Amino acid sequence: MPRPRTNIQRLSPYAPGEQPDTSAVTKLNTNENPYPPSPAVMEAVQSLPAERLRVYPPPLAQPFRAAAAELHGLSPDNVIATNGGDELLRLILTCYCEPAGGNAQGGIGVTDPTYSLYPVLAAIQDTPVVSTDRKDDFSLSPDTIECWNEAGCRVGMIVNPHAPTGRFETTDTLRKLSDNFGGLLLIDEAYTDFAPADAIELVRDGLDNVILLRSLSKGYGLAGLRFGYGLAHPVVITTLDKARDSYNTDAISQAAAVAAISDQAYAQQTRERVIAQRDLLTSELRRRGFEVLDSQTNFVLCTPPDKVPAADLYEQLKARNILVRYFDAPRLDDKLRITVGTPEQIDKLLNAISQLI
Amino acid sequence: MPRPRTNIQRLSPYAPGEQPDTSAVTKLNTNENPYPPSPAVMEAVQSLPAERLRVYPPPLAQPFRAAAAELHGLSPDNVIATNGGDELLRLILTCYCEPAGGNAQGGIGVTDPTYSLYPVLAAIQDTPVVSTDRKDDFSLSPDTIECWNEAGCRVGMIVNPHAPTGRFETTDTLRKLSDNFGGLLLIDEAYTDFAPADAIELVRDGLDNVILLRSLSKGYGLAGLRFGYGLAHPVVITTLDKARDSYNTDAISQAAAVAAISDQAYAQQTRERVIAQRDLLTSELRRRGFEVLDSQTNFVLCTPPDKVPAADLYEQLKARNILVRYFDAPRLDDKLRITVGTPEQIDKLLNAISQLI
Repeated sequence: MPRPRTNIQRLSPYAPGEQPDTSAVTKLNTNENPYPPSPAVMEAVQSLPAERLRVYPPPLAQPFRAAAAELHGLSPDNVIATNGGDELLRLILTCYCEPAGGNAQGGIGVTDPTYSLYPVLAAIQDTPVVSTDRKDDFSLSPDTIECWNEAGCRVGMIVNPHAPTGRFETTDTLRKLSDNFGGLLLIDEAYTDFAPADAIELVRDGLDNVILLRSLSKGYGLAGLRFGYGLAHPVVITTLDKARDSYNTDAISQAAAVAAISDQAYAQQTRERVIAQRDLLTSELRRRGFEVLDSQTNFVLCTPPDKVPAADLYEQLKARNILVRYFDAPRLDDKLRITVGTPEQIDKLLNAISQLI
Repeated sequence: MPRPRTNIQRLSPYAPGEQPDTSAVTKLNTNENPYPPSPAVMEAVQSLPAERLRVYPPPLAQPFRAAAAELHGLSPDNVIATNGGDELLRLILTCYCEPAGGNAQGGIGVTDPTYSLYPVLAAIQDTPVVSTDRKDDFSLSPDTIECWNEAGCRVGMIVNPHAPTGRFETTDTLRKLSDNFGGLLLIDEAYTDFAPADAIELVRDGLDNVILLRSLSKGYGLAGLRFGYGLAHPVVITTLDKARDSYNTDAISQAAAVAAISDQAYAQQTRERVIAQRDLLTSELRRRGFEVLDSQTNFVLCTPPDKVPAADLYEQLKARNILVRYFDAPRLDDKLRITVGTPEQIDKLLNAISQLI
């Protein structure tokens, strides 16, 4: 039997949130948008001619790049389209991070807690991870960049707004990080559509050591489509393009993605509803004795009142067909991450919680 | 500006065949099926509810794996679904091949000429390539496996039927290769739907050092969908799954792929037409003085008659809006690779050739 690489043999793969195969479940565990994609997306999917499936798709997703450039006030050269944001993350590690070979330099910097996929991607690339703890309020520690620079990190990863806490850092803060960092700063903006601002001005200003990750999974209600993109200096985009699978996004998803980002009116409307419901969920949980962090995303991270272990509450909710996310990890194992659902879903959750605690 | 890895800096990316953005072109350059996908595929795409796009797709593509297992007389554990066959190739290199670090061992073995993506993927992984020349008739050289074993190749790659020649090796030949090879033997069956047999019995027999690559791009008329899969021993599948992007295939393509492989009657009918037209194209080119290799794929590799340089003929055809494939590479630069088109496309090509030579 052929032997895989040692790092792959040792690897604990990423564990995606549960995806139950039934609509009986109130699914508040993987941060999907509670509202479906724009009708324009469905129209684009349904009207795609068979001929577009017969031939290879545009290899560089040119129509999408043009549409994204227009939306963001950038050039198509600033845009790379990817098969979900996850592919963009992988490409960044593949192009910039060194397989260790016993070397502790050349890897990624993260801030703990963070998106649990990052260390998995680093393990696949066999590259080191330098983790700096966030402060008690989950803000960035002031020595983050110094730590990363000392460790020779080639890529630093900041989720903003932050997952799994929902905390938001200003663009000024991020600009200072990029000014001082010796590597490529990835700003993972998967949740930016629910936040007060994004960091797009860093790309507009021509910074060549910053890349923004965007996803259509959350803000556009398209988790099932697997479409993300990166925004960066053209030199960074050209580099990532070299490692991309030749036709990484397909003809249908390209058409659907163009339709989605071209219907900003619809996207804006669903986001406003999610934000209003997030605020409602936050205050109602607080009324029930939960500690809830202020969130600028479509989820909240909350600590149940005294004596209710988060793990138990997770299980009890699950027994009632309500799925939320529990992380068995330091600083998170007393908390639950709850996706902002529809008003009906929130009611159901709150009623269950009222009965359980 | 952050510096990419040295291997990425040096990399010459894969050059996909031209994808003209116009239907005025007779496109015989990238081996698409001349017939569109099954109506059942379009029905699956058009009837997908928006809800399936709102939520994450089945992470392991379970419905597709079950359908593929049934089709091939295997278990779902023998199947991995990928975003095109290209992703499967990348996963194999990621999991089994060592980044060089100055080491000449641990890479891939190929037979020259071969699919030009293989060495690009090896360069991305920074792993060595050992290439053994095929014989003058493009059959496998008898010392192929010995060369690969001596060089410590972790993966050997055989395209069968072979691209870009169309030549076919029997399953017995492949079984002998796997018996003697110390690494994982990838049999790239992207074109198998046009061939007299496939190597599926090697997987059915439980061999743990063989993996078959399948693609929906050619045999199912779905190049625009980006859907491929691997068939192997469950231990190999589990290994590759570790390095897969969490949700590597999307909800629409999973539904379309299930519909495609479930309509074998349609697929069989289009394949028979392609095979009949391949035989016609072969004999008509020979009548015009071309040397044409017998092909078991949906393309032919041919040498124009004396004094007509292939590169010139390629350009002259292109000037008439007929695209074929020319490879500026040793042993291929006197030849053209021509995709088998519809009877109308073949007529157009043959008429143009008759005028040009």
